[in-house]
Amino acid sequence: MASADTNLCYLTIGEASGLIRRGELSPVELTRAFLDRIEAVDGRLHAFITVLADEALEEARAAEAEILKGEYRGALHGIPLAHKDLYDTAGVRTTSGSRVDEHRVPPEDSTVIARYREAGSVLLGKLSMHEFALGGPDFTTPFQPARNPWNLEHIPGGSSSGSGAAVAAGLCMGALGSCTGGSIRGPAFLCGTVGMKATYGRVSRAGVVTLSWSQDHCGPLTWTVEDTAHMLQAIAGHDPRDPTSSRAPVPDYSLSLREDVRGLVVGVPRDFFFSPHPAVSGEVQSIVEKVLVDLEGLGASLVEVSIPSLEYERGVNSVIMLSEAFAFHEKNLQTRAHDFGEMVRARFRLGGLLNASDYVQAQRVRQVIKRETAEVMKGVDVLVTPTMTQPAARMDVYDPASTMHGPSFTAPFNITGLPAMSVPAGFTADGLPVGMQVVGKPFDEPTVLRVGHTYERHVRWYERRPPI
Amino acid sequence: MASADTNLCYLTIGEASGLIRRGELSPVELTRAFLDRIEAVDGRLHAFITVLADEALEEARAAEAEILKGEYRGALHGIPLAHKDLYDTAGVRTTSGSRVDEHRVPPEDSTVIARYREAGSVLLGKLSMHEFALGGPDFTTPFQPARNPWNLEHIPGGSSSGSGAAVAAGLCMGALGSCTGGSIRGPAFLCGTVGMKATYGRVSRAGVVTLSWSQDHCGPLTWTVEDTAHMLQAIAGHDPRDPTSSRAPVPDYSLSLREDVRGLVVGVPRDFFFSPHPAVSGEVQSIVEKVLVDLEGLGASLVEVSIPSLEYERGVNSVIMLSEAFAFHEKNLQTRAHDFGEMVRARFRLGGLLNASDYVQAQRVRQVIKRETAEVMKGVDVLVTPTMTQPAARMDVYDPASTMHGPSFTAPFNITGLPAMSVPAGFTADGLPVGMQVVGKPFDEPTVLRVGHTYERHVRWYERRPPI
Repeated sequence: MASADTNLCYLTIGEASGLIRRGELSPVELTRAFLDRIEAVDGRLHAFITVLADEALEEARAAEAEILKGEYRGALHGIPLAHKDLYDTAGVRTTSGSRVDEHRVPPEDSTVIARYREAGSVLLGKLSMHEFALGGPDFTTPFQPARNPWNLEHIPGGSSSGSGAAVAAGLCMGALGSCTGGSIRGPAFLCGTVGMKATYGRVSRAGVVTLSWSQDHCGPLTWTVEDTAHMLQAIAGHDPRDPTSSRAPVPDYSLSLREDVRGLVVGVPRDFFFSPHPAVSGEVQSIVEKVLVDLEGLGASLVEVSIPSLEYERGVNSVIMLSEAFAFHEKNLQTRAHDFGEMVRARFRLGGLLNASDYVQAQRVRQVIKRETAEVMKGVDVLVTPTMTQPAARMDVYDPASTMHGPSFTAPFNITGLPAMSVPAGFTADGLPVGMQVVGKPFDEPTVLRVGHTYERHVRWYERRPPI
Repeated sequence: MASADTNLCYLTIGEASGLIRRGELSPVELTRAFLDRIEAVDGRLHAFITVLADEALEEARAAEAEILKGEYRGALHGIPLAHKDLYDTAGVRTTSGSRVDEHRVPPEDSTVIARYREAGSVLLGKLSMHEFALGGPDFTTPFQPARNPWNLEHIPGGSSSGSGAAVAAGLCMGALGSCTGGSIRGPAFLCGTVGMKATYGRVSRAGVVTLSWSQDHCGPLTWTVEDTAHMLQAIAGHDPRDPTSSRAPVPDYSLSLREDVRGLVVGVPRDFFFSPHPAVSGEVQSIVEKVLVDLEGLGASLVEVSIPSLEYERGVNSVIMLSEAFAFHEKNLQTRAHDFGEMVRARFRLGGLLNASDYVQAQRVRQVIKRETAEVMKGVDVLVTPTMTQPAARMDVYDPASTMHGPSFTAPFNITGLPAMSVPAGFTADGLPVGMQVVGKPFDEPTVLRVGHTYERHVRWYERRPPI
């Protein structure tokens, strides 16, 4: 029985929704299986800040009743999800992983949470994260840092640490993360899941606690690319509550999963993402080199490209992030400094030392990076790179300051706003996951999904689950 | 003979181009008339930093030869212009009114200068300006401040001081100014000319010394609205050299001059622009109240509108301007501080004291102002307001710091990027000009021109020239 339940937790959204639609799987049974697994596993994993057991079961019952009446809403109806704890949830505390907001209960749902409710999904709870979406595991906040389900001694990445851990460990079928420099793709890479941020403006950020609004993106982590397409479909599209929200039409993302990669041109920005660099793991590099060979074998053509200004990406991402973060948190830093964890307090205060011309210069260099990248994207359909420089570090030796220097392979696409996804690509000799990053043109999420889906079906890493 | 020449200098571009096209006026004769008048008058007016007498005559001869061969290029062919001295001119020093750039000779034309050359116009010289487009008349720079041709004891406004003075005094037929908070519309108001900045992105800024690139605009000052349409036509349109340049199609602006204002809805933002305020002249207000009555009489309908966030416009405009200016000038401020005039040096250093969060907060409030203004613009065709709060001050009592506090009626449209024009609307009891401001929707320059042209033909203030 316990084993049967765990098997339910290892279904994909695509599989479960088929069963639910045909009346072969009860959303209540499914939800109960997840709640049981959270109960059994999360004491070691710490992926959840808040579990909404009673509420989830009630939502599951409502979904079941609707479906029995023939009112099936679509692929997420009755599907148990959980979301990073910076998405406002009406009447449910939303902590941002900080003592500052430990007891904050928003009156309204964020737009994307409301859209998942409308889609009929079940909310299992709110997930762990690095405080205010910055920094690393910090034992000076009120919440235990999440662990990596592939090896509990290792970090799951961040800032969407709970989202990566929960999806990988089968504690929910999909989870929203959020990212400013790589906080969706990073945990996806380190936890062996799919993680995608769509184009800047594609997904509403209304009711989401901001870190750096010119670089923040919302997006899902799931077990497969198909599931990411389902999760994205429900939340993509214009939102009048978010002034940066785009009015570009939303395509049917499932259609892109029907095509393979034949004829696509894959740009390989070798000098920044593949050259030998002291911060870059050779094991990660060789796994992603293998991806390139595979993609060529599947019918894509490879072309080397270069974006020289990426040399400045880390500084640009950090200066803009810390400047905007300080502007948002300034008042609390003055009045409640010791409610922040040590790491984030120090980092935010750094933002207060930056002057206006630092920020302005960072925005100028950002324009150069955007222009150069746009120029390169004219000649290719996607870029493919490693998602991160290193597999998951051990928690006891991890240096969170490492996110302040060395290259970031994800931040360039927060700077430019291009759609980017991490897809599992292999495992290290130690059994830790490694992922590749697929980057598309503005609003061309379909091609990004198409490449990720084709590759995923080819290597089938989604058949391998963590040992927890 | 001197009188005949002066009459030539009082032709509009529209009148002169008709004569030139029909072979009834020689561009050489016309250019000589302007050079004579500059010689006669500019010792008192100080509108020019550099006069290009020989070069202008050569250009005029070339234009004449082309026209005689039947190669007439259009409305600006053979027309003598002069431009603010921050537009790069190949081989001709471009000082920005500063000792810092006193001997700077750019190798290339700015895009708009190149476009005026292609249009066949004649370049009489480069015009006075407030140092680096900021501040006020400053006797600590190497250049004499320009004077107001209506009364030499009064300021002509700024920072395009020479552009306003030269056009009003008949020293050129049209002049480029540039503006970050009102430096085109301000001198136009104070000197009794037309002055227009088009929508942000409409006119290239490549090769123009920047003050605040997110708020800088280029545009012409002329004697009539029709002439502004000619001057704008030649420079509007996409420029790959300017990354903020728009690809929106450019209409034929002359077509908008055929229509009157019947049926147009004029928004009157009374609470910010018309309410009694210690900084606002009652005389200016009553002249623009009369404009509103006239427009209604001409068939427009008036509707009161309100943009509450304009309360913050001065701070937003200043913080963004000084932050961006400091970023641009920082190196010279460190190494050559005393080459800056006292006023600008102090002002730029203020920019260096602003921190990143000041800038970020200013950009946030800017978004609120943009949103509120966009909402109001949905319900109207144009806004009409006074262009400035006060007629031209006496130079000996003028306090340049006044541009740092009190409301600015022009800066809101640098903040929002909307097209805005100042058109002469009357005179004070002391004989100083007063203008109204017409503001349009994004890229709706035609409607702005249409309102200005209709009103100008109604009141015919362009028939009155300054006594100089």
